[in-house]
Amino acid sequence: MDSIVALAKRRGFIFQSSEIYGGFNGFFDYGPLGSELKKNIRDCWWADMVRRRDDIVGLESSIIMHPKVWEASGHVAGFTDPLVDCKVSKQRYRADQLFFSPVVVTGADGVAQTIGYVSALESEKTAADLQAAAETMKRKKAVQGTLAPVVVKDFTEAREDEYALIPSPATGEPGSLTAPRSFNMMFQTNVGAMTDASSVAYLRPETAQGMFVDFKNVVDTGRVKLPFGIAQIGKSFRNEITPRNFIFRSREFEQMEMEYFIHEDADWAKCHQDWIEWCKNWLLSIGLPESHLSLYAHPKEKLAFYSKGTVDIMFQYPFGVQELWGIAARGNYDLGQHAQASGKPQELFDEATKKKFVPHVIEPAVGVDRILLAVLCAGYAEEDVKDEKGNVEKRTVLRLSPRIAPVKVAVLPLLKNKEALTDRAKALYKKLQRRYAVFYDEAGAIGRRYRRQDEIGTPWCVTIDFDTIEKDGTFTLRERDTMTQKRITEADLFALLDEQVY
Amino acid sequence: MDSIVALAKRRGFIFQSSEIYGGFNGFFDYGPLGSELKKNIRDCWWADMVRRRDDIVGLESSIIMHPKVWEASGHVAGFTDPLVDCKVSKQRYRADQLFFSPVVVTGADGVAQTIGYVSALESEKTAADLQAAAETMKRKKAVQGTLAPVVVKDFTEAREDEYALIPSPATGEPGSLTAPRSFNMMFQTNVGAMTDASSVAYLRPETAQGMFVDFKNVVDTGRVKLPFGIAQIGKSFRNEITPRNFIFRSREFEQMEMEYFIHEDADWAKCHQDWIEWCKNWLLSIGLPESHLSLYAHPKEKLAFYSKGTVDIMFQYPFGVQELWGIAARGNYDLGQHAQASGKPQELFDEATKKKFVPHVIEPAVGVDRILLAVLCAGYAEEDVKDEKGNVEKRTVLRLSPRIAPVKVAVLPLLKNKEALTDRAKALYKKLQRRYAVFYDEAGAIGRRYRRQDEIGTPWCVTIDFDTIEKDGTFTLRERDTMTQKRITEADLFALLDEQVY
Repeated sequence: MDSIVALAKRRGFIFQSSEIYGGFNGFFDYGPLGSELKKNIRDCWWADMVRRRDDIVGLESSIIMHPKVWEASGHVAGFTDPLVDCKVSKQRYRADQLFFSPVVVTGADGVAQTIGYVSALESEKTAADLQAAAETMKRKKAVQGTLAPVVVKDFTEAREDEYALIPSPATGEPGSLTAPRSFNMMFQTNVGAMTDASSVAYLRPETAQGMFVDFKNVVDTGRVKLPFGIAQIGKSFRNEITPRNFIFRSREFEQMEMEYFIHEDADWAKCHQDWIEWCKNWLLSIGLPESHLSLYAHPKEKLAFYSKGTVDIMFQYPFGVQELWGIAARGNYDLGQHAQASGKPQELFDEATKKKFVPHVIEPAVGVDRILLAVLCAGYAEEDVKDEKGNVEKRTVLRLSPRIAPVKVAVLPLLKNKEALTDRAKALYKKLQRRYAVFYDEAGAIGRRYRRQDEIGTPWCVTIDFDTIEKDGTFTLRERDTMTQKRITEADLFALLDEQVY
Repeated sequence: MDSIVALAKRRGFIFQSSEIYGGFNGFFDYGPLGSELKKNIRDCWWADMVRRRDDIVGLESSIIMHPKVWEASGHVAGFTDPLVDCKVSKQRYRADQLFFSPVVVTGADGVAQTIGYVSALESEKTAADLQAAAETMKRKKAVQGTLAPVVVKDFTEAREDEYALIPSPATGEPGSLTAPRSFNMMFQTNVGAMTDASSVAYLRPETAQGMFVDFKNVVDTGRVKLPFGIAQIGKSFRNEITPRNFIFRSREFEQMEMEYFIHEDADWAKCHQDWIEWCKNWLLSIGLPESHLSLYAHPKEKLAFYSKGTVDIMFQYPFGVQELWGIAARGNYDLGQHAQASGKPQELFDEATKKKFVPHVIEPAVGVDRILLAVLCAGYAEEDVKDEKGNVEKRTVLRLSPRIAPVKVAVLPLLKNKEALTDRAKALYKKLQRRYAVFYDEAGAIGRRYRRQDEIGTPWCVTIDFDTIEKDGTFTLRERDTMTQKRITEADLFALLDEQVY
């Protein structure tokens, strides 16, 4: 993971936000290559999800919406994390990331005695930390007997009488932690000239509500009929207390969500399954390896009461298998909530049964940043390769699909100081540039130039050499992954790009 | 303007945000056609500004940045509007939109007497409103003499002793208006678990600061050399007190900004001029008519102290000639400010003079929403045309450039119930869909189908008729603006699109 973060910084994919001011936790900037990669991911999704389908239309709703939207959706009341304050240090912790255990010692008389509590923040070795702390406590308190293994719970599982006994991670002393209280993860602001309760508004924590709130507008203007979907790409914001894993969990992120509306009597389970398939195939189409993907069906007892089922497509990141794409069958909960809160019916008329009904919805929701991180992680490799002289050297390669690679082709004249070569190379470069993101590079040995392109994921390099200008006009096409080279005509190069890039 | 707003709603270009909740002032949603149009404008700009140029790279910085960014940029102190409160009604006004005049009557004795003050909010007839109010006051107070014409000033020009004399527009009575005070237009929020002064952050009011703050990161990773630019497209937010003119002045909007860095000794005036030309040509390339464009050079005395000059490309909207694209020569003010505030030098090294220097910058900044409104306004027309039977009927047409039109081609089988026609039409539709946003329509008379496409700006309709399937395979290509029809082969259709769309 460290090498991926380092490459992302070194080659201008991803920077910390506001780095010259020490960075800003949970926010990231995408540099020259990162912004191209991100745009390509968005554009591929939009092309496949919206433009190439007859049943899905696009939407761009505002980030700040009427606050009643978030009351109706349940986010004002329920989109919360449990937080615990340390009254002494003024530190604040997520209760579900603050772990504790009683320290139990069994004496020679066989009586088990709780001699205190230990606490630790979530990490890869929380249990070991707690056990070590328990041993230290037993030693310090000079208690005789056998120390029991720690029983790890998080603070949301603590009993009320335990709050005052659990030490604050900041001070190491008990008595300063408060009971957990709900902390809303929506960023709040004020709209208009007044700064009071009447003007409170929120940055959307998801793009999905835009599709529900605009449902009737789309139906009335969009010439759509069931089943159909509304798709949106856009920024969302969540005030995560502990942003982590690079761009995986940040406070500002970009979502690609689609709400697929179906008849209330439709076979939702089949539709759900179809969308899981579609999403998985789409991930394969942008180059994620099947070996890194798995499915996770949320257990029934953990679903919201209105949910019919949620399946996550999981991706094997270096820091663990994590959710990439959630595909939720949400019934008609959202439209129903907005109908009730707004007083505006969100119904369609069934010509067959002559009855009105509220459509149900299947929602595939994925984060652009998470996909981008996944393609970087899956594509990154360090390999031993032989150079022209047979010496083994290391090459760093980013195996990005041609569909999303920030640069599609690098155009390289064999020599910098031969005008015939550079002129021909520049002419090809200009021609390619009209349609594709391409790069022209004449600096350094050809092998080094290949390596530079390997590292940023450029699928092909085209070298203009003396055969090009003196013989048949063909170029050397060098392929990133296999490092094989072959001669290719200009027409075949354009055909290759046309086939592979779109 | 009303017809444009109505069309935008009716055909799913633009909706009020949160319309089912009564709307949310200053926020808008883009529907199925609007989101395509907006994406096309963005994509054209990105292609021309970034991908097709060798000297400009892209960036996507976060919307929420470190608050110190906005201290250094001057926005925390200076990005303000003057506001006036009415203490009785609790209404709040922008001081520069609240107008007043003393009411002066000259008696028979030749002595001029101020009998009171009148006020009015900014409108198209502010002066007339004030004059009428002055006449009413003279009549009510039964003052004899000649009423002088009103002298219109806004509240920022009022003397301190006048504040208490100017009537509140809400109550009509003087004495309740406060002195103007500065109101910061940045939306404020809190980041992290604490909600206090230490956690205040802002939604960016412009994307430009991202380019300055990431300047060194781009220089260190991007293989750029002077002159070069950093370009960004993204949302910005301003808490406008009086959003107006539809999407022209809203609270959430999208910017396309580019910072072009040049040597401190470079000919900035020429570079400035070149960018004005470039921007104007770009607007022409997406179909804005030259007749609607003009230039406005900001007068020297109104420029910020660091500014070398600003020229706005103005567009003739239905509500007046307004700023569309600002091209500012900002010297090295911004990099200098961030160097000072962050303690990190923002310098480049000049190999020739062996000296370090802070680059200067030319900044072309334009709003996507303003361009979108401009193309709708310039493209909208209602025309009298003759139908097949020679009857005159009205057609509404949106003359959008093929580069940005939401639908490029509509594919229409002549008849709905002839499978040979619909099969051929669908096959063409599917083939086009791989590359372009296209529409398939088989419902209704062909004339009506043309009209539907005219109204949403589709440049071409292709009709599959019996000649297509029985004779030479050609289609009827019907052109939106001229309404002319000609036969075309599939290959020529693709060539036409390839030439016109990109």
